[in-house]
Amino acid sequence: MTPDAAYQELLRCYQEEALLESCQALLGWDEVTYMPPGGVAARANQLAYLAGLQHEKATSKGLGDLLALVEKSDLVKDAVSPAAVNVREIRRAYERFVKLPRKLVEEQARIAPLAQQQWATSLQEADFASFAPWLEKTVALRRQEAECLGYKKTPYDALLDYYEPGARTADIARLFDALQAELTPLLSAIAGSRRRRKFAILKRHFPVERQHAFAMEAAVALGFDFERGRLDTSVHAFSTHIGPGDCRIAIRYNPNFFSEAFFALLHEVGHGLYEQGADPEHEGTPLGTPNSLALHESQARLWENLVGRGLSFWKYFYPRARQAFPEALGKVSLGDFYLAVNHVEPSLNRVQADEVTYNLHIWIRFELEKALLSGDLPVADVPAAWNEACKKYLGLVPPNDAEGCLQDGHWSEGLIGYFPTYTLGNLFAAQLFDKARLEIAGLEDGFAQGNFAALFEWLRDKIYRQGSRYFSKDLVLSVTGAAPDHRPLVESLRVKYSEVYGL
Amino acid sequence: MTPDAAYQELLRCYQEEALLESCQALLGWDEVTYMPPGGVAARANQLAYLAGLQHEKATSKGLGDLLALVEKSDLVKDAVSPAAVNVREIRRAYERFVKLPRKLVEEQARIAPLAQQQWATSLQEADFASFAPWLEKTVALRRQEAECLGYKKTPYDALLDYYEPGARTADIARLFDALQAELTPLLSAIAGSRRRRKFAILKRHFPVERQHAFAMEAAVALGFDFERGRLDTSVHAFSTHIGPGDCRIAIRYNPNFFSEAFFALLHEVGHGLYEQGADPEHEGTPLGTPNSLALHESQARLWENLVGRGLSFWKYFYPRARQAFPEALGKVSLGDFYLAVNHVEPSLNRVQADEVTYNLHIWIRFELEKALLSGDLPVADVPAAWNEACKKYLGLVPPNDAEGCLQDGHWSEGLIGYFPTYTLGNLFAAQLFDKARLEIAGLEDGFAQGNFAALFEWLRDKIYRQGSRYFSKDLVLSVTGAAPDHRPLVESLRVKYSEVYGL
Repeated sequence: MTPDAAYQELLRCYQEEALLESCQALLGWDEVTYMPPGGVAARANQLAYLAGLQHEKATSKGLGDLLALVEKSDLVKDAVSPAAVNVREIRRAYERFVKLPRKLVEEQARIAPLAQQQWATSLQEADFASFAPWLEKTVALRRQEAECLGYKKTPYDALLDYYEPGARTADIARLFDALQAELTPLLSAIAGSRRRRKFAILKRHFPVERQHAFAMEAAVALGFDFERGRLDTSVHAFSTHIGPGDCRIAIRYNPNFFSEAFFALLHEVGHGLYEQGADPEHEGTPLGTPNSLALHESQARLWENLVGRGLSFWKYFYPRARQAFPEALGKVSLGDFYLAVNHVEPSLNRVQADEVTYNLHIWIRFELEKALLSGDLPVADVPAAWNEACKKYLGLVPPNDAEGCLQDGHWSEGLIGYFPTYTLGNLFAAQLFDKARLEIAGLEDGFAQGNFAALFEWLRDKIYRQGSRYFSKDLVLSVTGAAPDHRPLVESLRVKYSEVYGL
Repeated sequence: MTPDAAYQELLRCYQEEALLESCQALLGWDEVTYMPPGGVAARANQLAYLAGLQHEKATSKGLGDLLALVEKSDLVKDAVSPAAVNVREIRRAYERFVKLPRKLVEEQARIAPLAQQQWATSLQEADFASFAPWLEKTVALRRQEAECLGYKKTPYDALLDYYEPGARTADIARLFDALQAELTPLLSAIAGSRRRRKFAILKRHFPVERQHAFAMEAAVALGFDFERGRLDTSVHAFSTHIGPGDCRIAIRYNPNFFSEAFFALLHEVGHGLYEQGADPEHEGTPLGTPNSLALHESQARLWENLVGRGLSFWKYFYPRARQAFPEALGKVSLGDFYLAVNHVEPSLNRVQADEVTYNLHIWIRFELEKALLSGDLPVADVPAAWNEACKKYLGLVPPNDAEGCLQDGHWSEGLIGYFPTYTLGNLFAAQLFDKARLEIAGLEDGFAQGNFAALFEWLRDKIYRQGSRYFSKDLVLSVTGAAPDHRPLVESLRVKYSEVYGL
């Protein structure tokens, strides 16, 4: 077999796996949007079966030989050529899959929908005890996964690498420490400021239907293409890529809090633009498929915060918001509204947290996840440990587990090791946005005119179309000229909030 | 291998196929409810891939040997025992699949979503020419399928057997002829009646949201379980079985015609009750899975017409309808409303047709399908042939193809050979309903009180829980004591409409 034929065969195998994965994505989307409750057992069986088939394809005999054949050839000489990237990514997936028993992969897929359904009920009833057995199962399966995959220092490394190729727990801890060291004084300064923001403006009544219409308008304005995507509601906001031309986002509306749906919308639109902006030339290949969740989150957090909490953004959108919600906002000035959406105060809820305290929420989850996985933290002790961490980092104790350790759905989905990508995403976003401002003349003046296309196009060319060509840290370096670094984020927060709070 | 082990292995294979089929069902449901237009190409690939996998499983080496082994054993001695029925149905599916090339099955699955999307556009634009190439492809693939499957008299037989095991084109033609011979004089008598019904009542304004609420109320009252099902909207009404505990129906609302959504709702609820009433003991086996579409349609048509167009039904529901639509119905009496929903008049639309003329619409499709498949009717001539048949059987000519040959989505889905099951279903429904009335004391008085459970339970025991145990004609015989027959339908229509029209 020629290296070229072997390479084509590898791509064909990848496409089969990708089709199975995309079917799972639709089943997963449906599960949390429209599936009737009684469908969950069948859904668990469907997902387990497809995951098993995917495992079968991904570990099929001969794949290793094909890889070895191509890896020895000239096809991969240029490390960032499509062939080399595709082979690198197929190799990474292969090495991971061959270490995992099919039964484990099936069981993880089977447990997730059942755990998610129980989580949604437990959340509603603020009852951790009813979720605990499912978290036990989930953690046990992930621990088994980490042991199968192997690791040098900590089992957490094994899981982390799936979400963020090349990331290491110790590096992230260092980065987080440095970030926290800088944010703590900023947070103290803000707490000491005499300026008080009219945050309660956002907690007035915002009718859900009008929130939805406003969300649709904003999504379109930012460039989300509804011919190739949808917006639905779900118990927790998310985005998912079903296939080329089909990217779906979902948010949750709170009639008594504007920010809950709207900033989640901007976040998920950010994920969506990343997917919709992918290079059609590499569609259906590993190169065309993002491999870094940190980069994915960087886009979500960039559109949510660096764009969506900016004054220019609201210069354009606030008159529209006022028209949509005259009862709530009719008498509120743009200035007061802008300050309200940038109100900084430690709170209990991650997705509603301001930019300054947000990473503390990630820190809490990161610490607890590591302890859960290593076995240092028994599942039964999660609520107490969560509350203690909240007290320590945020100075607050959740009144119940719905506002505490049950608030996020990630663990129920089996996502352990995912949370750090939010903070990495925040760092990347700050670096990328600084660069965009330098390179795009009048960027924020454009926002004030409703022009978000210039930013989208810049990001599309620099990031979205790159797919998996580079690992995230190399892409950030190549685009911004600097390695991933916490200082641009700290600096941007310092500048912004010094002004907001008159520090 | 023991026969018992072989039998267990057959069931396991069946379950794998059933899982793949259920994933295709969800992909298909999503395709016509929520999928963004841009997702269709990826959806076509997903469906083709899963259909190919299913083919692979269904024709896997050794399946024939397993079947032969079990078929020679005592396991199948009692022809209606679960084992015998399961083996019979697995054999039927196997014989069908091994005759079909995988490529054909994949291509049919790939074409269907593309054809359906084009059909929806062509329907909207009343433009047959844009749909014609897709109908060409669809017919060509079905013709190829019929040739692969083989047949004695006509290729239509080969397709028909899939929807209605054991049915033959010639038998259906005879049945239809007999039915038509009896309905023609009834229709003439009705046309000659001086009584004119206030049909226009139903064409007043019925706000869509309230139609939806009313539909939900009716579905619940009839026994549709929303814990194990959903109701959505789609360009054409349908029901689908995603898996145990997950049965979905969809209808289309017309703000200016009450019947369009409501009677479609009753129809789809009928399908849904059949699925939801299945015997949990045989879940996931061929026995637990209905094999006759005629029986399925009999349940849809029974709830739609024999229940839903009955006076007792409206004694219960009309006060509720009047409350839901006070503007349209506030001044309309129950009597006038009952007569309006039983207005008989040849019309152009199948799903809106009254009970007396409905089967003429099926006849038109049956004739055209046969001619399409045999090649006697070129696709380009479909509109003319359709219009001519409408003129002949209904005395009307469609003003455009949207109201003519584009009105049904079946052909775009690849369903050729399905239509006759509606008329067979009408016959079965009349026979079964006659029997239910004899066996359930005060059946229709119960309807007037909102009690539909007695009928549901009777049908559940007699029909729904039987699954595929019997072929439909044997089940009808065993439940009613008579073979399938057109006379009970004719008689029930004659009695009802003699009263309605004072004949």
